[in-house]
This record gives sequence, C-alpha cells and structure tokens, in this order.
Amino acid sequence: MSHSFGPLVLHVIEFGEIVAIQSIMRTKPPHLFDDATHVTAGDSRWLGRTSDDYWAFIGPFGGTTAATMLRALIDHPERSGDPLSLTVNFCAPIAQGAFDLDVRLVKANRSTQHWCVELTQGGADVGALATAVFAERRPSWSRQEAKFPQAPPFDQIRPFPKIKASWANQYDFRFIEGDPDFIGAKKEAPGSAFSKLWIGDRVPRRIDALSLMAMSDAFFGRIFHVRGELVPFGTVSLTTYFHADAADLDSEDISNVLAVVDATIFHKSYGDLTGALWSASGRLLATTTQIAYFKV
Amino acid sequence: MSHSFGPLVLHVIEFGEIVAIQSIMRTKPPHLFDDATHVTAGDSRWLGRTSDDYWAFIGPFGGTTAATMLRALIDHPERSGDPLSLTVNFCAPIAQGAFDLDVRLVKANRSTQHWCVELTQGGADVGALATAVFAERRPSWSRQEAKFPQAPPFDQIRPFPKIKASWANQYDFRFIEGDPDFIGAKKEAPGSAFSKLWIGDRVPRRIDALSLMAMSDAFFGRIFHVRGELVPFGTVSLTTYFHADAADLDSEDISNVLAVVDATIFHKSYGDLTGALWSASGRLLATTTQIAYFKV
Repeated sequence: MSHSFGPLVLHVIEFGEIVAIQSIMRTKPPHLFDDATHVTAGDSRWLGRTSDDYWAFIGPFGGTTAATMLRALIDHPERSGDPLSLTVNFCAPIAQGAFDLDVRLVKANRSTQHWCVELTQGGADVGALATAVFAERRPSWSRQEAKFPQAPPFDQIRPFPKIKASWANQYDFRFIEGDPDFIGAKKEAPGSAFSKLWIGDRVPRRIDALSLMAMSDAFFGRIFHVRGELVPFGTVSLTTYFHADAADLDSEDISNVLAVVDATIFHKSYGDLTGALWSASGRLLATTTQIAYFKV
Repeated sequence: MSHSFGPLVLHVIEFGEIVAIQSIMRTKPPHLFDDATHVTAGDSRWLGRTSDDYWAFIGPFGGTTAATMLRALIDHPERSGDPLSLTVNFCAPIAQGAFDLDVRLVKANRSTQHWCVELTQGGADVGALATAVFAERRPSWSRQEAKFPQAPPFDQIRPFPKIKASWANQYDFRFIEGDPDFIGAKKEAPGSAFSKLWIGDRVPRRIDALSLMAMSDAFFGRIFHVRGELVPFGTVSLTTYFHADAADLDSEDISNVLAVVDATIFHKSYGDLTGALWSASGRLLATTTQIAYFKV
C-alpha cells in the first residue's frame, strides 16, 4: 500500500525528520483510494467491497473495481514481477457492498505470469472478469514512438468543479483541451471526442500501478463529449498496458499524470475510447482502450 | 463456415448458373483459413489443431489461434449476437498438433454475453486464455471519429513477396507505407513503426469476424520495422474490438482490408502495437492493440 504526501508537504521534509515522518505514515489513515480498493487475502478467494467514495450513479466506479482486482494480484504471495497488461470485462451490475474475488494463477513462466480474477457477489453471477499479465521487465533497447503531448503545468490549470458522481470528486481533473460541456441544450454539431487533461487524486497520492489502472477509466464517456449531453453509458471491456514498472514509477515520484483520450467510432450502440497517461517528465506510463455501451 | 470466390470468378457468374455454383460450393474444399481454424464441437470442451499452413517459425501464428478460439464461440449453440471484443493472452508455447478448448459462458445478459476460453494441450499447461464479449447490436446514432486513411486501391499495389514463415504467405500484403526492410545490415537510425497496407487472404476469402481477428495479428512486429532487423519477438496479449457486426460485414462483401498500424513505445523488453482495419468503402471494421515481448 502506498502513502503519499502532497507537494506542499514534501518540500518541508528535512532529512532529520525522516523518523518522525515514518511514524506519521504508520498512524496516518489510509488514502481514500487505498480504502476503496482494499482487499482481504484468502487462499484463492479474496474479499473486497464497493466504496461510497467512488460511486458512479448506479454502481461502483469501474476504475476502482479494476484497481481492486489488480490489488488482489499485486498483494498475492505468488505474484512476481509488475503488471504488464490488465483486461477487465464488466459482466453485470455490481451492487453496493462486499464481493468475492476468485484469483487464479493460470500459468507461470520464467519471467511472466498469467492471472485470472472473477468478481462475484453472494455466490451468484459473475460481476467482472479480469485477465492479467505480470512480467519481470529486463533492461532492453528503449524508444518512445508516441510524442509527448505538450501542456501547461498542472498548477497553471483550473481544477474541474465537483459534480454529482462521487468518484469524479476523488479526482483533480484539469482540462487543457476538450472540457466537458454536458449541461444545457443539446448541441447542434457533434463535439470533439478528444480531451487533454491532467489527472491527480484530489487528496494527492503517489502514482502507482493501482492508480494508473483506475485513472485508465477516469475519463468521461466520449459519447458525452461528442453529443454534448449525458446519455445512458457503461464500459463493457477495458484493457490497460503498463509501460513503466515499479522502479520506473518510483523514479518518477509523481501524484498526477497528463492524459490524452479520444475515440474512433460510435456505431450500433457501442463506442470505443483510446487513452494514454504520461508523466510530466515525458514518460509514457500506460496506454488504455475500452469499448462501451451507449444509448442515443 | 464461409466460402468465397475471388473477384475473377465472381464476375463470370450469371444468374442461370446459381444452381451449378451452389453445387461447386458444396464440393469445393474449405479455404485454408477455415481448415486452420476448424473446431470440433464438444460439450464444454472443444477441439482444434495447429495448422502447418499458418506456422510462425516456432509455433502457430497467433492470429489463427485467436480466430480458432473465436470460432469455438461463434459456433457455440448458446452463442447469441456478434463478437464485440476479444482479448487473448498467449501464456505458453503451443506445440504442433491438437489442442483442447474449454469454453465457458461466464455471464449472459439481455443483449450481451461474456465468454472465457482456455486452450490446453494434453491436459497440461494453459497455452492461451481468451475472454470475449458478444453483443446483439441495436441501431443507434452513429459517427466515425477516426479519419479513413486514404490509399491507392488494392489492385494498384504490388504484393509483398513470399517469405519463410508459412503464415505470412497465406496473406496478400500490399504495403503503401512502411514496407518491411529487415534484410541486410542493421540500420543506423531507427525506422518508423507506422505502416499502411492492404491485407487480404492470398486465396481470396470474404472478410468476416474470424478473418478480422486473425488479421489483427497479421502485422510484422513493430520492433522489426523500427530496428530494421528481425529480433526475438512474441505477442503476449492481444485485444480486438469489432466495430462492424455480421450484417455490416455482409453489406461490405469484401475480401481485403486497409490496415494502419503503429507503436507507442518499446521499453524494458516489451513494446505495443495499435492498429485499425478499414473497408475500402471507408468503414472502420475493427481496432486492435497488443503488447509483445522483444529482445534487443
């Protein structure tokens, strides 16, 4: 589990205070996000529960569901390496309350592991099904093909105001392009599906694989942007690739990411989303894609 | 199963010959691709086998493995709707010969189904693990955000020559941009990861969800393009979204697609790929992404 300090706290830390800080870390209540994605270890069955802090109108925010499934893998005693890819299929509505996570190591190789996680409630239907690959990433020739999306710094952009869905209020969204405009009359011409924004936790928290997973789903439905209105919408399948391992993320030591997000198509009640999450230093941390249901 | 006629055959068909043609269709041997992705129905366990026609040096072409897993779902008596998304995790090398497919309907809703397929050989380790979503796609407001990549017609581009890997020779690749150049001395400057190409089956076959699935993996590793050399490489996870249902594909009635493919990053032994498959008429048929191991 990660504890983090906001930048304001960080730059008053002196070397001699480390012991005192560590004692604060131990007694400090966990971050809301760590509470929301908390899991209790079992043998092959783990336990989690939905969080009212990350609620999305009719169910839990899919990003915390995905991050909770990922946490059960990261915390698993047989886990080795770092998350490389995670796909979550959202199968059925998840009710407020506890859920079981059936965790299975499908195959372990020398440097990769393949996992499967099923989320069920009350022994009934599967609510979500995830598959993941973990890898011990070895040094190699490196190259970023994608261009870093230039943007003014996080501190220079005004935070997006709070809205009704509690999950969105746990994030500090700072839109550079493609601000949401879902209020008022339906727009005549379709808007752009593209947005560029900074995303951080509202209560700053150091970026790790768990928050990258959740932030992969922390975009407003592209159909809302294009239509300029809120419509029935739900993510069906979400895939995230991690391009930074734990050591890379440690060296970044950041609490927000620059995100670019777009869509390619809306057709016969389904539309997609593609996104990328960058550090301010220009490192590509994760790419993500999802397909979602909409009703227009 | 689909049978198809090349354009040369098609335009000599006269209405009066339909009965004769149907008789030819019944006796005509199946297309190589349909042979390669053939499955024998079981109850929850289906059977398939690797194809020497689609072999990739040390194992079967991942695209036919993925398409075979998809076929077991499409042919399943409980299946309803069309493929919306398929993710395949390649867990271990698949040996030449027969394999079992454990097919499980994880959750069925009113208009969607969630499936899981595990490929094993000889009752041993899992070779591949797939999850899929099927959907009955209802009419809706539609919009393509992605711009159709302009290209000269298929017939005006020279086919890529045959190479050693048998799978590649079952395809008719016609490169418009980003031709492979892996031969000779290692290049000094990194090349582009982007390619634009037409892809059809070498023996023409009508495009369906199965061939879109296989073609999603029918790209040369982007690391080969960027490095200008062949290096150890293997796809780890592959996700494809289908943006056209069976009715859409029927209305297109095509035997090749225009593909654009690119990469965003190569880092610590893993790199990604993103791709899109279009019909010549400008319809986006599928988008795909994968993460792959490489050794440089």
